[in-house]
Amino acid sequence: MHQEAIVISRAGGPEVLVSENRPVPAPGPDDVLIQVSWAGVNRHDCGQRSRGPNDHESDVPGLEVAGRVHAVGANVRDLAPGTPVCALVDGGGYAQYALAHRALVLPVPDSLTLEQAACLPEAAFTVWYNFFSVAAMQPGETALIHGGTSGIGVFAIQLLRALGHPVYATSGSDEKSAFAQSLGASRVFNYRTEAFAEIMAREGLAADVVLDMSGGRHTEQNLAALAYGGRIVHLSGGSGAPLQASLRAIMQKEARITGSMMRPLPLDRKMRVAEALRTRVWPLLGKEIRPVIQRTYPLSQAAQAHRDMETGDHIGKLLLEVRA
Amino acid sequence: MHQEAIVISRAGGPEVLVSENRPVPAPGPDDVLIQVSWAGVNRHDCGQRSRGPNDHESDVPGLEVAGRVHAVGANVRDLAPGTPVCALVDGGGYAQYALAHRALVLPVPDSLTLEQAACLPEAAFTVWYNFFSVAAMQPGETALIHGGTSGIGVFAIQLLRALGHPVYATSGSDEKSAFAQSLGASRVFNYRTEAFAEIMAREGLAADVVLDMSGGRHTEQNLAALAYGGRIVHLSGGSGAPLQASLRAIMQKEARITGSMMRPLPLDRKMRVAEALRTRVWPLLGKEIRPVIQRTYPLSQAAQAHRDMETGDHIGKLLLEVRA
Repeated sequence: MHQEAIVISRAGGPEVLVSENRPVPAPGPDDVLIQVSWAGVNRHDCGQRSRGPNDHESDVPGLEVAGRVHAVGANVRDLAPGTPVCALVDGGGYAQYALAHRALVLPVPDSLTLEQAACLPEAAFTVWYNFFSVAAMQPGETALIHGGTSGIGVFAIQLLRALGHPVYATSGSDEKSAFAQSLGASRVFNYRTEAFAEIMAREGLAADVVLDMSGGRHTEQNLAALAYGGRIVHLSGGSGAPLQASLRAIMQKEARITGSMMRPLPLDRKMRVAEALRTRVWPLLGKEIRPVIQRTYPLSQAAQAHRDMETGDHIGKLLLEVRA
Repeated sequence: MHQEAIVISRAGGPEVLVSENRPVPAPGPDDVLIQVSWAGVNRHDCGQRSRGPNDHESDVPGLEVAGRVHAVGANVRDLAPGTPVCALVDGGGYAQYALAHRALVLPVPDSLTLEQAACLPEAAFTVWYNFFSVAAMQPGETALIHGGTSGIGVFAIQLLRALGHPVYATSGSDEKSAFAQSLGASRVFNYRTEAFAEIMAREGLAADVVLDMSGGRHTEQNLAALAYGGRIVHLSGGSGAPLQASLRAIMQKEARITGSMMRPLPLDRKMRVAEALRTRVWPLLGKEIRPVIQRTYPLSQAAQAHRDMETGDHIGKLLLEVRA
């Protein structure tokens, strides 16, 4: 059986994404084969495309999908064919069929469409893991979220707000700032025009946890805005330029500069996150947390989705629609 | 009542340390006035001297003393005059009398002299706090200690070894490396001649916690030698040059770069450390942990002690002897 898949043909710009006919993968004993309806586009996919194919990961990008269970491996007993699901996948999402480990497959709440559910896996796993495992966020602690209107940002603001954490955010335009505020951020700064650390100091605000996707661009201000014992968690390596930070500022605040990568995270850690998502986050979906979709594209226009992702003008998720 | 004290007369080299006649301070309700027999010299004191006097700390350097209780405040009921004690003090150690908060005064074990006890407070508070609070070291985790023969280093190697942690260390000469090994470090690298991270990788070694007093000089190698989830704890701001670290390396290992300063630490945190020292560390003194003294100087020769500290050729502690 064959399917349409989008393949990274070589390292390069969006134009290197090409449609190919590929065999549908067969599920291993712990796998779920999902017939994909929607695939999320993430900045990670653009980076993978720029670097080009390699030997240890699928040349089909895509880390999250929503669709219906098509077939399951021998150890999977709770997911009947046809069940609507969303899942974190280790590549392979830009395709008609994708394999997911059964522990990383999550239900689609009744209140959400498959399209909305496709916005969730990457953001939910990333936000939960980084705030509650990497940063070990405690009740009542405050968060500062850079890129407040990114796919990660819109989810993080809503989740943290729902869990009772005061949330500050930055974004790159006043329009985006207004949107981030509408999601529940109590204070949003336009990082192009506002010196957020100075303003926060003036208003007596400080962040216990900073989520940074800027690749180190805000380090000095992050440290200035940090509370004693605060954590700065990096999700992006940026251009590859080294992070530069004042050791004295780190020591004075007992700051912790850290970061993580979701894709290579060992499976047992991802499984623990999935369990937390089921019990702590999924009950909030469609109520305190609503998916935010900027634009959808047919699978064949994945290159355009990458162009738009890299322009960075979007608010919320970019999704690929996959036809059976 | 007056006493001899060493004072930082202005910012500068060791020559700015001068002897003055100063009033003996009166203990507040929670204070213990200690008649000092020995005062420890720490690198912090040299930094304070270089920067010169300021408005928020004593111009008498010295963060640790051993001696006998001379007088106590109204709330101190368990320390009779004449009791041999050692203490962490907030400056003022280079003097005949020094004030300490009662919670930061620790007993001198029967097996140690006052001279040996003067080696303990700064190292014990610093090592315990940074490994077990800042880095939250877990049973069985490994440590890499830079400056393995510094006052901090010799204490850290012995303590961690006694608590069952494999310890690696670096030092600046083969002689120092041999000494650090004799204290219980299972592997010691001469950082001037050996690429410790490469050797560790080759031997399958990794550090869960790195204690760094180099001011960021070893960052790249620290990250390379770090285990997944490892912590790099900085105790020195170095020259003030920014730390430079690969964000990708941080993210790949979920490394945490952090640090702390003992002197400005809030009192309640110091008190919690003191409690841990009483129950977990003091029983090991004179057995698994023995103080290492490089050289002692009369109080009046504090400037020479600073010169030797800054040369960095010592193994273990430099102490000032204070006559009544």
